[in-house]
Amino acid sequence: MTTVQQVLDYIETIAPPSMKESWDNVGLLCGSGSQPVTKIMVALDPFERVCAEAAEAGADLLVTHHPLIFQAPKAITDDTGVGRAILRLIRGGISAINAHTNLDCTPGGVNDILAATLGLADVSVIDPVGTDAAGQPWGLLRQGTVTEQPLEDFLHHVKTALGCEGLRFVSGGKAVRRVAVGGGSCGSELRQVFDSGCDTFVTADVKYNQFWDATELGINLIDAGHFPTENPVCAVLVKKLQAAFPEIPVVLSKNHTDCVKFY
Amino acid sequence: MTTVQQVLDYIETIAPPSMKESWDNVGLLCGSGSQPVTKIMVALDPFERVCAEAAEAGADLLVTHHPLIFQAPKAITDDTGVGRAILRLIRGGISAINAHTNLDCTPGGVNDILAATLGLADVSVIDPVGTDAAGQPWGLLRQGTVTEQPLEDFLHHVKTALGCEGLRFVSGGKAVRRVAVGGGSCGSELRQVFDSGCDTFVTADVKYNQFWDATELGINLIDAGHFPTENPVCAVLVKKLQAAFPEIPVVLSKNHTDCVKFY
Amino acid sequence: MTTVQQVLDYIETIAPPSMKESWDNVGLLCGSGSQPVTKIMVALDPFERVCAEAAEAGADLLVTHHPLIFQAPKAITDDTGVGRAILRLIRGGISAINAHTNLDCTPGGVNDILAATLGLADVSVIDPVGTDAAGQPWGLLRQGTVTEQPLEDFLHHVKTALGCEGLRFVSGGKAVRRVAVGGGSCGSELRQVFDSGCDTFVTADVKYNQFWDATELGINLIDAGHFPTENPVCAVLVKKLQAAFPEIPVVLSKNHTDCVKFY
Amino acid sequence: MTTVQQVLDYIETIAPPSMKESWDNVGLLCGSGSQPVTKIMVALDPFERVCAEAAEAGADLLVTHHPLIFQAPKAITDDTGVGRAILRLIRGGISAINAHTNLDCTPGGVNDILAATLGLADVSVIDPVGTDAAGQPWGLLRQGTVTEQPLEDFLHHVKTALGCEGLRFVSGGKAVRRVAVGGGSCGSELRQVFDSGCDTFVTADVKYNQFWDATELGINLIDAGHFPTENPVCAVLVKKLQAAFPEIPVVLSKNHTDCVKFY
Amino acid sequence: MTTVQQVLDYIETIAPPSMKESWDNVGLLCGSGSQPVTKIMVALDPFERVCAEAAEAGADLLVTHHPLIFQAPKAITDDTGVGRAILRLIRGGISAINAHTNLDCTPGGVNDILAATLGLADVSVIDPVGTDAAGQPWGLLRQGTVTEQPLEDFLHHVKTALGCEGLRFVSGGKAVRRVAVGGGSCGSELRQVFDSGCDTFVTADVKYNQFWDATELGINLIDAGHFPTENPVCAVLVKKLQAAFPEIPVVLSKNHTDCVKFY
Amino acid sequence: MTTVQQVLDYIETIAPPSMKESWDNVGLLCGSGSQPVTKIMVALDPFERVCAEAAEAGADLLVTHHPLIFQAPKAITDDTGVGRAILRLIRGGISAINAHTNLDCTPGGVNDILAATLGLADVSVIDPVGTDAAGQPWGLLRQGTVTEQPLEDFLHHVKTALGCEGLRFVSGGKAVRRVAVGGGSCGSELRQVFDSGCDTFVTADVKYNQFWDATELGINLIDAGHFPTENPVCAVLVKKLQAAFPEIPVVLSKNHTDCVKFY
Repeated sequence: MTTVQQVLDYIETIAPPSMKESWDNVGLLCGSGSQPVTKIMVALDPFERVCAEAAEAGADLLVTHHPLIFQAPKAITDDTGVGRAILRLIRGGISAINAHTNLDCTPGGVNDILAATLGLADVSVIDPVGTDAAGQPWGLLRQGTVTEQPLEDFLHHVKTALGCEGLRFVSGGKAVRRVAVGGGSCGSELRQVFDSGCDTFVTADVKYNQFWDATELGINLIDAGHFPTENPVCAVLVKKLQAAFPEIPVVLSKNHTDCVKFY
Repeated sequence: MTTVQQVLDYIETIAPPSMKESWDNVGLLCGSGSQPVTKIMVALDPFERVCAEAAEAGADLLVTHHPLIFQAPKAITDDTGVGRAILRLIRGGISAINAHTNLDCTPGGVNDILAATLGLADVSVIDPVGTDAAGQPWGLLRQGTVTEQPLEDFLHHVKTALGCEGLRFVSGGKAVRRVAVGGGSCGSELRQVFDSGCDTFVTADVKYNQFWDATELGINLIDAGHFPTENPVCAVLVKKLQAAFPEIPVVLSKNHTDCVKFY
Repeated sequence: MTTVQQVLDYIETIAPPSMKESWDNVGLLCGSGSQPVTKIMVALDPFERVCAEAAEAGADLLVTHHPLIFQAPKAITDDTGVGRAILRLIRGGISAINAHTNLDCTPGGVNDILAATLGLADVSVIDPVGTDAAGQPWGLLRQGTVTEQPLEDFLHHVKTALGCEGLRFVSGGKAVRRVAVGGGSCGSELRQVFDSGCDTFVTADVKYNQFWDATELGINLIDAGHFPTENPVCAVLVKKLQAAFPEIPVVLSKNHTDCVKFY
Repeated sequence: MTTVQQVLDYIETIAPPSMKESWDNVGLLCGSGSQPVTKIMVALDPFERVCAEAAEAGADLLVTHHPLIFQAPKAITDDTGVGRAILRLIRGGISAINAHTNLDCTPGGVNDILAATLGLADVSVIDPVGTDAAGQPWGLLRQGTVTEQPLEDFLHHVKTALGCEGLRFVSGGKAVRRVAVGGGSCGSELRQVFDSGCDTFVTADVKYNQFWDATELGINLIDAGHFPTENPVCAVLVKKLQAAFPEIPVVLSKNHTDCVKFY
Repeated sequence: MTTVQQVLDYIETIAPPSMKESWDNVGLLCGSGSQPVTKIMVALDPFERVCAEAAEAGADLLVTHHPLIFQAPKAITDDTGVGRAILRLIRGGISAINAHTNLDCTPGGVNDILAATLGLADVSVIDPVGTDAAGQPWGLLRQGTVTEQPLEDFLHHVKTALGCEGLRFVSGGKAVRRVAVGGGSCGSELRQVFDSGCDTFVTADVKYNQFWDATELGINLIDAGHFPTENPVCAVLVKKLQAAFPEIPVVLSKNHTDCVKFY
Repeated sequence: MTTVQQVLDYIETIAPPSMKESWDNVGLLCGSGSQPVTKIMVALDPFERVCAEAAEAGADLLVTHHPLIFQAPKAITDDTGVGRAILRLIRGGISAINAHTNLDCTPGGVNDILAATLGLADVSVIDPVGTDAAGQPWGLLRQGTVTEQPLEDFLHHVKTALGCEGLRFVSGGKAVRRVAVGGGSCGSELRQVFDSGCDTFVTADVKYNQFWDATELGINLIDAGHFPTENPVCAVLVKKLQAAFPEIPVVLSKNHTDCVKFY
């Protein structure tokens, strides 16, 4: 019988907790390591709606990228979103595991999947932090190349490849050739990306002053959305988990799509 | 149908949250205010064994003195005592409410019950912090008088009245006449008790240096145990809740006795 | 001869510094109060390009919304954006004044202008902080009403009224009737807006988790862009300054448009 | 002529200051290193009564385990216990030396003496911090074995061996075979003791929640008193000092017995 | 019999502790309030040499301006100046009282005496903090007027009146008419003095950058020495104490002169 | 064409930034590294008057010891000294470089020049921090020897050699033989100097309690003024810069003399 702990052990081989940021919260955040697992659901976030979907689907383990608990709660009640999610999980007999910044950083993780989804070539880690057990460099961001093209062509490509509703961007006045990617909110890494020699940066949750910083630096900056840039990792997680635990059904959340629309 | 919120509202009339210490955590710490209540269990602590007993008894609300959550948890798992307790509660469909330092301080609370159990006369609040809605002074400690007696007689009385396994004490070299009481760990209030003119102080969890401080000050200090000095409030809570909600069975935990033995 | 100090004095009557947030930096941040003013330029931000434009235009005073200095600099050199802006200003003989969160909060300021630009009726301050010298309530956000309409109609109206390249939004599943506005990055005020009873909130720089919070709360949340929601105040500032100092030419920056594009 | 400094130098060879906790205060805390020593008194604590006894006994050096000064005083007056003790010492021409957590941790120190007094076999340091000059491991706690016996038999043994007035304890439901010891207030080390594989822990100043933690972990926890668990080191100190300084009389305080009684 | 506490009570009527700075340490810092007083010595500082002089003179109370203890000591030994002073006092049976910033601020205190010694007319408190029991304003600095004179004449007057070895000064390029005084290290109050409209400031321990600040502000700044500007209060204290306690000899330290020489 | 950056590079070879204190601010603090340099002015401080002198002299680079910016400014206006200095520099087209504690510490820096100016023999670094690229020890203070002489003779020598207006000092009761030097405010290093075995310490900005500490320790302490002890390095800087950049005129500020006078 496979247990929650065994699934966690596997996840920690592909996203070692030692790669996480110091402020982050990863691993088994709800439930019991000794619980038997008969069905796994994978989703980007453990929102209440996703927890409800997992319960309805009969899953006993929810694996997500974002953590269930960020700010440690003084009470677990239905007055807060995190309280409602925890109540749903425990009432549904569901444990919850997540891999967040460790999954961003690990080889084959969020940002390698994003680079692959965008078809980047010659992908490498920007400013690697160290090497993993297999000797591969790891770190937050990735860079790679595309056939040189006008920014507008690349915008079209990003929107199509990631299935975005829309993009926000500033032009740095350059053609696109060397592209950096950072799924989710990586706008604060703009200077590092610029110093690495990239002409284009794809990330999300970009703020007004970061768009202007890019304009001043002369680098193309594309906000492709938090969900579109990170969600591709979920399908990969489903496949990896299914391969590692062939006897357990592993499903992707259907409820969890992007909520942000463009007009 | 009575809800958890209605029970909480009642408890807050007898132990207003505004009387709690700033570091304390009180109120609804687990579950849902809108949940219907069909059975209430009362206990001093929400230990895992008590949560299990409540589940077996079919209670849907656990009312305790000590809080379920002190240090806000980064994960709710069975690797920690608080995690196991929360899992038991939520799996059992049980909400948890507590009144801690507000119950210590309120008129008719922990320390008034302790004073009454010891048969003190002319009971008053030591250094009142304010007055409650009814105009009664409130604060942490109580003082009252007994017929003047040798310390040994009073020790016998305390042990019998509170049902203690044993007592630890130092003699201040005085007969017992004016007694201060502070249920639980109130040893750090020794100086305040001394300044109030009491000759004897009954509290619990007294440390080595506090026993010596009492010796130097010349005040009788009696450690009657954390459980024996606070638990009397639970039976009173059962009665008050039963009177306020006559249609709901209110029971006292049977599992939760004192664990500390003397040899 | 009008001096920089006289212009500052006037600005402080319409945006009292006492209304600013404690972390903010407003007033005369560069130059000299005694400097004569012969031409004023107004712009949303004191970016280097704007400072250069002011110099070329022969302005000796730049009035902006955002402050020239946020993080106090340890050096004033052309290695940083703020350094380059300061060097441009001083070399060009230009003083710099700004009104930031005080201009957001003041009656007739950023958010009243935004509400007016959107044509809101019955505009009031949400949770006023106090009253100004004229007895009018002030505070960060505004709310007002529109003729009840589907969200899509309101999106069209916002885009047209503010001249936005595009909008990002989530639907709360409600028609639009009571609208809250907060120019710039006010997403963290979402809960306050919801509690005030509004069905729709127009602000900018909204993050992924804030869009989801709105979805969960069931409130329409529209990110109309930092520049489009704040820039309308600049034209009003030009008019007010021109009226107060009729002998001095007051011009609006032409260089400073929004840099963010949509695809 | 032997000086205070020479006695301190000797004490630091048996209890190196480098072994102390960072918050601790050890060494010469009152008087003068150059003072000639003609008589030494040893006691567990430098209470005022002990300082008075030392003065009456004609001692010019007081050696204790607990420090004279914990919280650095803003005034040295007879309004405080520490002030009265310092006044007694200086008026009596007595210097004061102590070794506290360094004496707890050192090979042959407080906890080795406690283990020996309890007759433990195969004694070793739990989780050693390092090795001393002689290559011996050092650290706070010790563990050792006894002939397997029921808890009640071991309670009898502890009470007799340490001369305790009484014991407080919880049963972990196990026979006694592998025993950890930590003189004084070491209840917070319970988890470490449990992880080391011991079935029984002897320490002091145990609090209510620590007794319950032991109950939940299933480990026998015995509070044998602060004085009874630490005082055995004093007689050993007397012997060692007498051997090192045969020409100086070294005496044990007679005034300093345990103040805590049981009923 | 007069006690130390009675002398302290008197000192607190002329220099209320409520006037002290929050970081300051005043009152009875060594000894015992119940000690009978047969002789009082007054000095600016409780240096070791002064404590020795007090012991030789048979004083049992030392009254100073500067506190015996600034940084609370972790040990009272002859390895430090403060340790040696405390050892001298206690061995000599001498209690120590001080009034520091409360004596600076109080009407009739350090700075009023300094103003009087310099012969200032129309003396008032600069920026009073409050009023004392008699309704008189109090605060740190004093200002007053002299007959208008060249700086050089005033320098001669200061040196003579205070008996200084030498003066350090910068000229602000102004004649002397309105003079501020702050005994001891008040150089950081320069801006406040300037804003009060004074042309000249007499204080001590002035640093390089403060001299330059005065040069830039155009204010005459005179460093007349810490001892010369504060010591005049000691003779006044002797007189006041002698009047209040006519039966007790009150003497001024003879050992404590200024150590600083000029070349 | 020589640029500001090239001059900075040279200065960093003689005063490596790695030698500075952690709280210090050194390097290019105003202007632009790419600016061509046609004239350099050197001065101890970048006071407004010095910046004005540099502008009048046609200098485009000001090199000083003290930093232009200590406390990072929230505004650059003529309301503050640092604001006026920055405005003067930028309006005059002048960049500003400084080397502060790195110049104090480096071999051949402030304190080696001071030692040489005083004619000390066998000069060495007191408690070296490390070695520089050339293998020479570096650190804050220097010590060296003079022919043994009475303090008064040495006072005469110091006053003459440094051109002081006056000296302040205390005698330690010793002849002068081994002298420590620390230009500027090094009084807090007194204990370190004493422990190094010196009989005499020359520094500046000495405070009352430091003079007394020296008296108690029995060490001659001479306050020779901040300017006189540090300014000698400026002439050396002029020479070194002139040698390194022979084509650029390098001049010493004439305006910047000492402002402190003695009476």
